[in-house]
Amino acid sequence: MAVNKNVLTHNLNREPKTERFFLEKIGPKTNSERRIKKFVETLKNFLKQKATNLRIHSITATSEAGSGHPTTCLSAADIVSALFFDTMRYDTNDAQNPNNDRFILSKGHAAPLLYAAYAEAGIIPTEKLRTLRQIDSILEGHPTPRFAWTEVATGSLGQGLSLGVGMALNGKYLDKSDYRVYVLLGDGETAEGGVWEAAALASHYQLNNLIGIVDVNAFGQSQRTMYAFDVDTYCKRFEAFGWQTIGIDGHNFDEILPALDQAKAATDKPTMIVAKTFKGKGVSFIENADNWHGKALAKGEDLDKALAELGPLHLEVPIQIEPPSVVDSGVRHIAAIECEPPNYPSDEEVATRGGYGTGLAKLGTANPNVVALDGDTKNSTYAEQFMSRHPDRYFEMFIAEQNLVGAGIGLAKRGKIPFVSTFAAFLSRAYDQIRMSAISQANIKYAGSHCGVSIGEDGPSQMGLEDIAMFRAIPEAVVLYPSDAVSAERLVAVAAAHEGIVYLRTSRPKTPILYDADETFPIGGCKVIRRSNEDTVTVVAGGITVHEALKAHQILAAEGTAIRVIDLYSVKPVDAEALKAAAADTNKTLITVEDHYPEGGLGDAVLDAVATEDICVHKLAVTGIPRSGKPEELVEHHGISANAIVQKVKDVTAV
Amino acid sequence: MAVNKNVLTHNLNREPKTERFFLEKIGPKTNSERRIKKFVETLKNFLKQKATNLRIHSITATSEAGSGHPTTCLSAADIVSALFFDTMRYDTNDAQNPNNDRFILSKGHAAPLLYAAYAEAGIIPTEKLRTLRQIDSILEGHPTPRFAWTEVATGSLGQGLSLGVGMALNGKYLDKSDYRVYVLLGDGETAEGGVWEAAALASHYQLNNLIGIVDVNAFGQSQRTMYAFDVDTYCKRFEAFGWQTIGIDGHNFDEILPALDQAKAATDKPTMIVAKTFKGKGVSFIENADNWHGKALAKGEDLDKALAELGPLHLEVPIQIEPPSVVDSGVRHIAAIECEPPNYPSDEEVATRGGYGTGLAKLGTANPNVVALDGDTKNSTYAEQFMSRHPDRYFEMFIAEQNLVGAGIGLAKRGKIPFVSTFAAFLSRAYDQIRMSAISQANIKYAGSHCGVSIGEDGPSQMGLEDIAMFRAIPEAVVLYPSDAVSAERLVAVAAAHEGIVYLRTSRPKTPILYDADETFPIGGCKVIRRSNEDTVTVVAGGITVHEALKAHQILAAEGTAIRVIDLYSVKPVDAEALKAAAADTNKTLITVEDHYPEGGLGDAVLDAVATEDICVHKLAVTGIPRSGKPEELVEHHGISANAIVQKVKDVTAV
Repeated sequence: MAVNKNVLTHNLNREPKTERFFLEKIGPKTNSERRIKKFVETLKNFLKQKATNLRIHSITATSEAGSGHPTTCLSAADIVSALFFDTMRYDTNDAQNPNNDRFILSKGHAAPLLYAAYAEAGIIPTEKLRTLRQIDSILEGHPTPRFAWTEVATGSLGQGLSLGVGMALNGKYLDKSDYRVYVLLGDGETAEGGVWEAAALASHYQLNNLIGIVDVNAFGQSQRTMYAFDVDTYCKRFEAFGWQTIGIDGHNFDEILPALDQAKAATDKPTMIVAKTFKGKGVSFIENADNWHGKALAKGEDLDKALAELGPLHLEVPIQIEPPSVVDSGVRHIAAIECEPPNYPSDEEVATRGGYGTGLAKLGTANPNVVALDGDTKNSTYAEQFMSRHPDRYFEMFIAEQNLVGAGIGLAKRGKIPFVSTFAAFLSRAYDQIRMSAISQANIKYAGSHCGVSIGEDGPSQMGLEDIAMFRAIPEAVVLYPSDAVSAERLVAVAAAHEGIVYLRTSRPKTPILYDADETFPIGGCKVIRRSNEDTVTVVAGGITVHEALKAHQILAAEGTAIRVIDLYSVKPVDAEALKAAAADTNKTLITVEDHYPEGGLGDAVLDAVATEDICVHKLAVTGIPRSGKPEELVEHHGISANAIVQKVKDVTAV
Repeated sequence: MAVNKNVLTHNLNREPKTERFFLEKIGPKTNSERRIKKFVETLKNFLKQKATNLRIHSITATSEAGSGHPTTCLSAADIVSALFFDTMRYDTNDAQNPNNDRFILSKGHAAPLLYAAYAEAGIIPTEKLRTLRQIDSILEGHPTPRFAWTEVATGSLGQGLSLGVGMALNGKYLDKSDYRVYVLLGDGETAEGGVWEAAALASHYQLNNLIGIVDVNAFGQSQRTMYAFDVDTYCKRFEAFGWQTIGIDGHNFDEILPALDQAKAATDKPTMIVAKTFKGKGVSFIENADNWHGKALAKGEDLDKALAELGPLHLEVPIQIEPPSVVDSGVRHIAAIECEPPNYPSDEEVATRGGYGTGLAKLGTANPNVVALDGDTKNSTYAEQFMSRHPDRYFEMFIAEQNLVGAGIGLAKRGKIPFVSTFAAFLSRAYDQIRMSAISQANIKYAGSHCGVSIGEDGPSQMGLEDIAMFRAIPEAVVLYPSDAVSAERLVAVAAAHEGIVYLRTSRPKTPILYDADETFPIGGCKVIRRSNEDTVTVVAGGITVHEALKAHQILAAEGTAIRVIDLYSVKPVDAEALKAAAADTNKTLITVEDHYPEGGLGDAVLDAVATEDICVHKLAVTGIPRSGKPEELVEHHGISANAIVQKVKDVTAV
């Protein structure tokens, strides 16, 4: 395949890039054909030299570390050289420049190659590469944002394309920036369904600014991939999903450069370049050899032999990296400002999911960086209220929760405040992405509706009963659980104002309004909503069980028994002091009641808060797999009703 | 499209099915062409009558329940009529007959249609349909195995095809039964990545006994799907994934029947029939109308009008259902029998993941129903040891964890004992499927390796730190956590012998052997491995932290402080009595130490066990997002090392 016209124009049109340098090197222009030919030959030669350097750095760093994945770095070295030193436009002095082309290493185990590229770009000193995988180094085994040029963490395969979808949505529809998003995938990881969720969405939204490259080295971790070197099969699949596809030899710059130019020329489709490569390319004794996944070359003979084959490092490769354009990306950091206050008649019954939708729509008016994504449940989560008020900032992600979350992370890393909603139960579909969003240090908000047995007739598959456990186990994640529409609205704004991961749990049934419109709900707080000096025990509840606790309070009061009732709207962090104080007033006894399984939920949050105290905690929660039925029947059947609370209070106070 | 030869031969070759009946009806054979034509016309007429009955039942039952999804039932009624009354072969008296064709309703919200089909098949009384969604009914809002004919629970979309892959793998490669697996999908759910994971695997394993039907009614829950009625796009995608595809009009039996016959004729490929339908088909005022998803017709005017349009129920439709073949499926229920005992030199260091692999290979020899599946990590989880001893019972599922788990559930429901393994961190990718496996009452075993920070240099993306929280929150799931290779081997056999979900957590680093080969490890037990009458505090550990606790014991002993050490190998159920007894002996003080986040793990299991006791629990766990580094450095850095334990013991005993 010959170099086509695209490459030439494309390279020669570059300013202030390397043309002047080449002209000097090549001397006064003679016949421009010859000049151009020379120019391109020189460029390719330089890119080959850079690729060799990347290979040398990759095997040296992993041998130094004594572990890592050198062979997968070698298969992608030529592609990465073309991307970093010819194709991509970025400001080497500013990782956060909003107009930089973005690069996502979906095959995160090739991290040494990524670090080598930044070293060769002059962004980090080459010596630093030798700190790879050390505890005090920012160059981790798989990329994390501890290294400033890594915007998103990767390493759990099959997630990079979704992250790219989020960034591409932002560039095309929100920031209107001309940056492109490049995602380098491994061939093995295309078996992950998340890749196809992203592929479908990317073509649906015509993301021509999204460019993927599949590195087809034909080896997975433990054996050959399903399709070995069958480039056509990969192309057929992405084509069927609405992508422009280009199959190339991933070690031949005569094919790599034109393919990247063709990708840039796309007007209404994302492009997937499928590149046939060899794992270990460039080092004879590991090239295309099995059982070399995730193995470093032993220092000494093996490493020396490999380095000898690769030849010396090219110290002077006079390539200039093209800077990004200077368009105003429109990115502004705006803290959530005051929203229109809640406004409900005190006698109205409103579901907390309704409060969520109303609050989110108001927040969208207050803060232009807020965006909403939903997985075809917007008429149940009430994200549709945001959509109708702010259609330009709502993205329908259809029934594909992994990509829903992945794209949300991508948007967050581009300065937006994404609210990602679906049924609480279906967020479990994206738990790996949620886990990775914490490692990516993403400022993302998750909203799960239809929690617990109180959804009723739809049955267990639709009930979120492990969602609190899921999110409490995410480091630094905040877990909020409103009990009425007022707190739901307020907590939406609180979530947006908090930098980091927040989970909002909402319920399906309509419930009474409990709070005044001006009530505030700080993270880490709780509300003592019933108290007297005669309280014998404290009931700690959340969401719909707050209303059951209030009913229990009434029943017991009629019988002359006083109990304290706490609305634990902030499940994580939890208000340990308030819980201890309440216990101290009420015979060192707490009863927790939650519409969640007993493990990892509100009850365990309370237990943990008083673990080292002499306080008894009695947990009421949903045990066993629920079934279909009326909400009130199920709440009764599973022992989290007012009656169950009354009985438990009698049991524990009888002692 | 005319009825092709296939249908005729296929139907006429049926014994003891309806031919005799038809011949009687049609009278002495004249010209066989005419006879055959008549036969088919009569059959189609009967199938239409059955479809009408299914529609009547579906809208009546949902109106009676006051909720549900009638319109999605109406779009699939003709397809289901053809499947249940002409295509599928099953024993109406035996839901468990191993040779029955299997049917999976991936679009689980069409449950009323499913129940209607079983009523029309004479399996459940028609009156029972009116109990739909009631708390004492087995006919739930979405299908669960509480209804015997529902083998697998559905309702979380996009999972049915994987369940079908597992059943088809079993039929083709293990039982060698001639049953076919039919999966009915909604169009919206094909956005789920899990569908494409299953699609890739099904063609890779040439599952010609797997037949899918996509019901393209063009509506999701909240709006049009991405592709509306674009049948070709769906066909192109499945074709690119290696399937035979057939696009049809899903309301025309002249197309439905031949398509199903063509699917049956497949020899080396799975088949996907893509059927264009109308949501609400048959009832004019809801047919192909938006905003009718998940809404029942109001009893009274709406329902009456709909019933009037559909006409009367056809009480006498003389259709016979073809029974399954009588081949011996080879299914035997065999309890795990005694395995070859562990055999390690006491001075050898072996990782628990190694013990898992060795134990699993031995178990495979002891029990022919044991099968193993892994997601291209078999050389890390050591499932490869099973593969090399029992290649015919190992299935490589590549890097696609949702389908890995879904297929495992399908195999479990066909009488196998699947051990599903990958890194503990990557099981989070399939948490929704794991959640559904409990609702499906599946006898499945999950094995997660590389748990915790002790994996070292690969960094946080590869560390399972929320896996215990995940599995503890699954009702009735057993969570086992071996600390040495002997207990790992023994617990593999214990897991197989237990009916239900078991999670086995294994570690990467090599650790000393702690137990004699003949030691037993019952579920719900623990091992007190250090004790004296002078113990001041009890340290409760699991996996690698058991070894840290033993070191701490030694350090403290040298200083004259005695501590008790418990190996909590059974995290769920937990040995509450042993924990209380130990606390009673050691100043009511427990210290838990785990290579897991603080929420939902071993520490919380202990807290829950002593929640109502006057016992102080001090938790040591991994806080914050870890990083790359040497295992011992990370164990130290995150405060779960011997030194950290020693310090904590001193702190709590100093008081």
